Amino acid sequence: MVKTNIPDIVVSRLPLYLQTLNHLLREGKEVISSNELSQHVGIPAVQIRKDLSFFGGFGVKGKGYDIIHLIDNLRNILNLNQIWPMVIVGVGNLGQALIHYQGFARQGFEIALALDNNPKIIGTEIAGIVVQDVADMQAELDRSDIRIALLTVPANAAQSTAEALVANGIKAILNYAPIVLNLPDGVRVANIDPVLMLERLTYYLS
Amino acid sequence: MVKTNIPDIVVSRLPLYLQTLNHLLREGKEVISSNELSQHVGIPAVQIRKDLSFFGGFGVKGKGYDIIHLIDNLRNILNLNQIWPMVIVGVGNLGQALIHYQGFARQGFEIALALDNNPKIIGTEIAGIVVQDVADMQAELDRSDIRIALLTVPANAAQSTAEALVANGIKAILNYAPIVLNLPDGVRVANIDPVLMLERLTYYLS
Repeated sequence: MVKTNIPDIVVSRLPLYLQTLNHLLREGKEVISSNELSQHVGIPAVQIRKDLSFFGGFGVKGKGYDIIHLIDNLRNILNLNQIWPMVIVGVGNLGQALIHYQGFARQGFEIALALDNNPKIIGTEIAGIVVQDVADMQAELDRSDIRIALLTVPANAAQSTAEALVANGIKAILNYAPIVLNLPDGVRVANIDPVLMLERLTYYLS
Repeated sequence: MVKTNIPDIVVSRLPLYLQTLNHLLREGKEVISSNELSQHVGIPAVQIRKDLSFFGGFGVKGKGYDIIHLIDNLRNILNLNQIWPMVIVGVGNLGQALIHYQGFARQGFEIALALDNNPKIIGTEIAGIVVQDVADMQAELDRSDIRIALLTVPANAAQSTAEALVANGIKAILNYAPIVLNLPDGVRVANIDPVLMLERLTYYLS
């Protein structure tokens, strides 16, 4: 499938569609209209149809979407038919919680390597993962095929750590540090900052 | 300031501008053009100017934005000139990490109440907060002015817990559970699901 010039904002909605469709499938549903999907996902039906039309449509007029078929297609589009090993850098409270989080593995994401610079944390085992020294990042990443990183270091260490990750082959970073990373083109970053999310909410609380 | 019909997507970018401007201010910068801000925040300058024009503009042609003035305005728009007390429901690994997280308090968000249903967790103290029984939600919220909740319960408890929170006056929920909540109009929800963020990234990793 040729995927060129798809707006980021369209791509960002596909995982939400996939999550909702998986939920509906588990409830025993087989076919869904864009209007019905719209009610579940909170995005207008016309937007859903337009988003999916970038990739070929998948719906049957007057009938709707075959849920299994649409899930298969979305998983292909999002490259989810494989296990994605990940490195996590920064094993403080948040890092430890993420290593324990079982939602990653259920969706094909596996924390395969954990790095920290704290001698008290290096060598400890968390949910089956032995934390390694971040000083060994290059050697550890060289002998892996990890391309995704979770970045959970303090804000003042985030930019330099991200640069080191990129220098060692990381192509995508989920950034939990509350700063905007400045990285080369070709490296994808998604920011997950709860304060930014809260500030979107307080706008509506007057 | 009248704020009507501002698209959600515009509102969602304001916290990112604010975060970046705060960072630049700490570095000693006083004035910035939309082009320069664009490079820091990764959003086109024309989009930044358009977003800010919804609220009055704030820039001086040929000179740029006075950073302190723009920060003040953004904080007013986002209702950030106050402390926002929050309740967290679900004190597992993630909930505990969030209670420890110091980034909330720095930005005026304070976890004032923690609730759980696990007898082993109820009554324990985490970072100065004594965890209360979720069965006492109504009484605890009645004697507070909390309107924001962090929802960190398991997915299968998220909808019913969210409904109970709304019934007790909560108006905004930061939802960490990997499901789409179905709540009355007037309640704002922001979803913070790391798997959805990762799936946006794998799209670009072929």
